[in-house]
Amino acid sequence: MPRYFLQLSYKGTNYHGWQIQPNAHTVQAELQLALSTVLRKEIEIMGSGRTDTGVHAKKQVAHFDLAEEVNCEDLIYKLNSFLPEDIAIESCRPVKAEAHTRFDANERAYHYYLHQSKSPFLTKRSYYYSQNLDVELMNLAATKLIGSQDFESFSKVKTEVNNFICNISEANWFLENDQLVFHVRANRFLRGMVRALVGTLLLVGENKLSVEEFVEVIKAKNRKAAGRAVPPHGLYLTEVSYPEHIYL
Amino acid sequence: MPRYFLQLSYKGTNYHGWQIQPNAHTVQAELQLALSTVLRKEIEIMGSGRTDTGVHAKKQVAHFDLAEEVNCEDLIYKLNSFLPEDIAIESCRPVKAEAHTRFDANERAYHYYLHQSKSPFLTKRSYYYSQNLDVELMNLAATKLIGSQDFESFSKVKTEVNNFICNISEANWFLENDQLVFHVRANRFLRGMVRALVGTLLLVGENKLSVEEFVEVIKAKNRKAAGRAVPPHGLYLTEVSYPEHIYL
Repeated sequence: MPRYFLQLSYKGTNYHGWQIQPNAHTVQAELQLALSTVLRKEIEIMGSGRTDTGVHAKKQVAHFDLAEEVNCEDLIYKLNSFLPEDIAIESCRPVKAEAHTRFDANERAYHYYLHQSKSPFLTKRSYYYSQNLDVELMNLAATKLIGSQDFESFSKVKTEVNNFICNISEANWFLENDQLVFHVRANRFLRGMVRALVGTLLLVGENKLSVEEFVEVIKAKNRKAAGRAVPPHGLYLTEVSYPEHIYL
Repeated sequence: MPRYFLQLSYKGTNYHGWQIQPNAHTVQAELQLALSTVLRKEIEIMGSGRTDTGVHAKKQVAHFDLAEEVNCEDLIYKLNSFLPEDIAIESCRPVKAEAHTRFDANERAYHYYLHQSKSPFLTKRSYYYSQNLDVELMNLAATKLIGSQDFESFSKVKTEVNNFICNISEANWFLENDQLVFHVRANRFLRGMVRALVGTLLLVGENKLSVEEFVEVIKAKNRKAAGRAVPPHGLYLTEVSYPEHIYL
């Protein structure tokens, strides 16, 4: 029973997130429909994780099983022809039968894009935030996120998890053309975590919260201690990484 | 009676074009509403020319008159705060009382963007066109557009004008990141002209029309001789230029 990993990108604007659900337009539903149509049998897919309504992905990964081997190049072509313009299949790779997009992911990375001058062509894919920001201070605060820590302060209050420990390996701000980007990489993320991190780091950038107070926010393990969540349309899932041994 | 030139950019996706009209959401109407609200009096504006539904502008220019001088920097700030995210005021300059955005424009330039690999983040702002293209041949054909010629073959059939002579000073294709861009500059453009030019040049790029046949299309002075118009969402008004003497 061959299993495949599909890598895809999507613009989340017109979707009610990744996860399939009744009466909602979701990326997973679109992809399952495309696969089932192209392969002429009911296919179920499993993603590496959810993305919320309006959140984008430059690299999402999903797996599915087939009774027989398929030509990956041919499948990519057919899927891209069938799928709407805002979802694109980037690659397809056969993996070991027990490989799992969610459980085998080593690390995930996100980017949060914002722009500080009004820019009509960035709507829906970057957050317009015109306040002056001290990026150096935001980068100093970002270093305090590194390591294995309890991030309950940045987790949605209504959540099923009871373990809030995440191991953040990279967290920094950088400039890309006219945009300011927050990059963060970790073994796992809590629901709403990146958007709450960015919202709180912006308070540091505006000198409303000192770096020392930012550290206290982490330690508080209380969502109320952190800043508000920034809107979803600046957020991109940019990477999901797997150990090489899962690939055939 | 001071007159001002406003330079603005907009994403045309959600607008029924530039030109004000009853029961339609237009850029001109949004801008007049913003100016009238900010300046607390009825203001009428005159644009350098129309853009069609879905067409974007990186540089559109409009003029308006005021009874008294206004602080331009302050006006820009207020207009940008009032206007939606997909319209941005770039500059404001006082001009001579008789200066006119439409009649004084020396030249206009457009860019048409297309991308050849599926790209979820370019929807609505670039035309996805996956056919193989011979860009060298398209550039050779583009050189045949230069000069003062009758471009009726590339004009919408239902149009009020009876003079189809345009003087094209620049026409070429270039690469910008993953996009292929057609640049064209002329003293004037006919309705639907750039989109018809691009559609016909694509036929050349696909070897469906030779460069010699392309020249014949121009000479035919008949819209039916040219290719179909490409969709509006790849088109950008990128420049409107004026003689320096109109500015105060």
